[in-house]
Amino acid sequence: MHGALLTDLYQLTMGQAYFDLGMRETAVFELFVRRLPPARRYLVAAGLAQVIEYLQQLRFTGHELDYLAGLGTFKSSFLEYLRELRFTGAVHAMPEGTPFFANEPILRVTAPILEAQLVESRILNIIHFQTLIASKAARFVAAGGGRQIVDFGMRRAHEAEAAILAARAGYLAGFDATATVAAGRRFGIPVSGTMAHSFIEAHDREEDAFRDFLASYHGDVTLLVDTYDTRRAVELVAKLAHEISTYNECGRIRAIRIDSGDLASDARAARAILDGNGCRDVRIVLSGGLDEFSIAALVHADVPADAFGVGTSFAASSDAPTLDMAYKLQEYAGTPRRKRSPGKETWPGVKQVFRERDADGVLLRDQVGLVDEVLPGERLLHPILEEGERVAAPVMLEDSRKYCARELARLPTATRQLGEETPACGYPVPISDRLRALTANFDAQVI
Amino acid sequence: MHGALLTDLYQLTMGQAYFDLGMRETAVFELFVRRLPPARRYLVAAGLAQVIEYLQQLRFTGHELDYLAGLGTFKSSFLEYLRELRFTGAVHAMPEGTPFFANEPILRVTAPILEAQLVESRILNIIHFQTLIASKAARFVAAGGGRQIVDFGMRRAHEAEAAILAARAGYLAGFDATATVAAGRRFGIPVSGTMAHSFIEAHDREEDAFRDFLASYHGDVTLLVDTYDTRRAVELVAKLAHEISTYNECGRIRAIRIDSGDLASDARAARAILDGNGCRDVRIVLSGGLDEFSIAALVHADVPADAFGVGTSFAASSDAPTLDMAYKLQEYAGTPRRKRSPGKETWPGVKQVFRERDADGVLLRDQVGLVDEVLPGERLLHPILEEGERVAAPVMLEDSRKYCARELARLPTATRQLGEETPACGYPVPISDRLRALTANFDAQVI
Repeated sequence: MHGALLTDLYQLTMGQAYFDLGMRETAVFELFVRRLPPARRYLVAAGLAQVIEYLQQLRFTGHELDYLAGLGTFKSSFLEYLRELRFTGAVHAMPEGTPFFANEPILRVTAPILEAQLVESRILNIIHFQTLIASKAARFVAAGGGRQIVDFGMRRAHEAEAAILAARAGYLAGFDATATVAAGRRFGIPVSGTMAHSFIEAHDREEDAFRDFLASYHGDVTLLVDTYDTRRAVELVAKLAHEISTYNECGRIRAIRIDSGDLASDARAARAILDGNGCRDVRIVLSGGLDEFSIAALVHADVPADAFGVGTSFAASSDAPTLDMAYKLQEYAGTPRRKRSPGKETWPGVKQVFRERDADGVLLRDQVGLVDEVLPGERLLHPILEEGERVAAPVMLEDSRKYCARELARLPTATRQLGEETPACGYPVPISDRLRALTANFDAQVI
Repeated sequence: MHGALLTDLYQLTMGQAYFDLGMRETAVFELFVRRLPPARRYLVAAGLAQVIEYLQQLRFTGHELDYLAGLGTFKSSFLEYLRELRFTGAVHAMPEGTPFFANEPILRVTAPILEAQLVESRILNIIHFQTLIASKAARFVAAGGGRQIVDFGMRRAHEAEAAILAARAGYLAGFDATATVAAGRRFGIPVSGTMAHSFIEAHDREEDAFRDFLASYHGDVTLLVDTYDTRRAVELVAKLAHEISTYNECGRIRAIRIDSGDLASDARAARAILDGNGCRDVRIVLSGGLDEFSIAALVHADVPADAFGVGTSFAASSDAPTLDMAYKLQEYAGTPRRKRSPGKETWPGVKQVFRERDADGVLLRDQVGLVDEVLPGERLLHPILEEGERVAAPVMLEDSRKYCARELARLPTATRQLGEETPACGYPVPISDRLRALTANFDAQVI
């Protein structure tokens, strides 16, 4: 999966030119988001662990070089160079789980230009997706107000890796579990799931299906109640709960799940039926096309839901399925660089983000300045790799998850809201005076 | 990548129940799209090759079974059964590249219920994504009116597999090339790419960058002209084109690429500059946030563009990043089954799609009927696997691409339009009388 050919062809054609021209000086690229998507007031950095894995494993196999040779575009001297290529540079980055804002570098690569350029496509591909999903997940968690959120998104995620890494990004941002077994195995995320409609439909009667499942499964069972008639199914569940309490060995009815219909009224009716039959400990899970706004509405209306399963709108971040994320050259051979293409201008130079907080740790503002400036606040970009080797210990996903929860709780109240933001009320991310001066100076000099 | 744990946990908990209960009868599941997304009038089936690969390789490794055992949910008898599990069923499907409509089964799995159930999540995950992207790609191809379309989407695709398989789906639907090298290698898709802005910015002067690249690269070069001032850069290109025509060995200026700004006016100005300087053979490539509507507008306005590079809106199908696709039980143990959850009702029974055409091959209507009905038109679902073995030869991607181009050209003119469709004018997909009768009969009997 981490093949060196996971890149855009132009990275290699530029690489050959750098190689031929003897351009071996150090380049600094920074990764940032130009503008937040509609309805996003902050984003959550994610994917750093996979970037580091990619960079440390980067090498071209013989078969990959044979393929490149077959294209007729590359000289053998360059292909021989690629055979020995390893990533020898430095990486600075915000820890995974850090909330961040537009125009803030979240990752910086400092390396010989050929290396720093080659890895652009895959670094963006990794960080873009997990950051997109962690940022979306944080909204579900905020909307849920402490109720459990479970990832049901595998079938709607964009292929296998997206399913597995969406589960990771969701867990990082505060989800409780995933239905995707491969993600549970790979990242140690709790897995969750009991039955689908087809199990009910494969039986002639819904009651037989419930009884059969309970007889087979010795653990906590969530019975799916919306296959035919939700309220009738919940009455059946209440009856079965009493019956099986007299058995020695069988599953325990831990919850019901409602996956369609009017979730609010069905959940209220179900709660009343369950409570009226002494099943106060049977929980209610809601799913079926939920997004953060419908969850917030259910929570706001005090609908008796203990957990939400989310799929489509989460795993593809369907209201905003991409971020305007870029990885741009900021310095080469010690000289600041800048892109001035209309609408895509960048701030030149090697930068740092300085985050200021109040006494309780609540974020006040982030200042983007030059890396050698002395500005108030903590520096958000930390050294991760130097000369291709780790200088920071790997962070456990559980620890990143706790850090993320703490930092999300420290966002200003207005920033944590789900809806559109009035631009004037945005979280402040000023540009330092020295960075502004450098930019003006650059524009005056470069043709 | 094709691990057996790429599934939702409930497939395994249901599997254990089927196993315990001795439910080994044959199930028939069908995969279909409930509703088309806004602005889609048809979809393009894709991903079958990867589904077949997945089914034929399906097996649980010892490590995977150890992980499942560690969950404490599964009995050892079931895990031993999983160790030997292979897919032994049948698959019928529409060929890749077939245009299809809502409520038409595009793939049918007939297998012991445990197997057919287990593979649901991954089959959906595969078919959903490639069908989504091929359907989007067909719109770009239609908008381009014969101009080349190149996939630049890797960085915005949702992780690595999505990037590679988006390239495949795009090529299937008529794209000309991809920038993603790994997709070129894996599927034999032509690759394309020359330079990014960073190459220009790494030089002190744009002219040096162009000269350096041409000196290093012995082939067709596309020079990127929008880093600082597009028109000035195009004048430079015209000057260089004359100069290098006197050299013995260097790259040939095949095209310029404009990636920002007012693409229409910059392309016109560039064409005038190039033509006025005898560079009529230098092509113009446009990119930068293009979608099918902006391409259609450029083509309609006769803007001199020879090719379009597309990224964000293509690789994540950003206006409609998911499809309402389902894989539903239609028959078990010879008896039709149906889901009646509100808004998610299905047509029961084992079905076939009968496509009727006029004398020129243009599609007239598709009738959804029962598999044993005799109805006019060709049957779109073909046998692919029987008893787990291939009964249809694998189809080369190039052949699927040609078939797709032919079938897209045979869509009714109204169906090929890009915009919203008036529901009354939709392509007709009637349900056969016998299927309607079966459904009514089912509802009268099932509780």
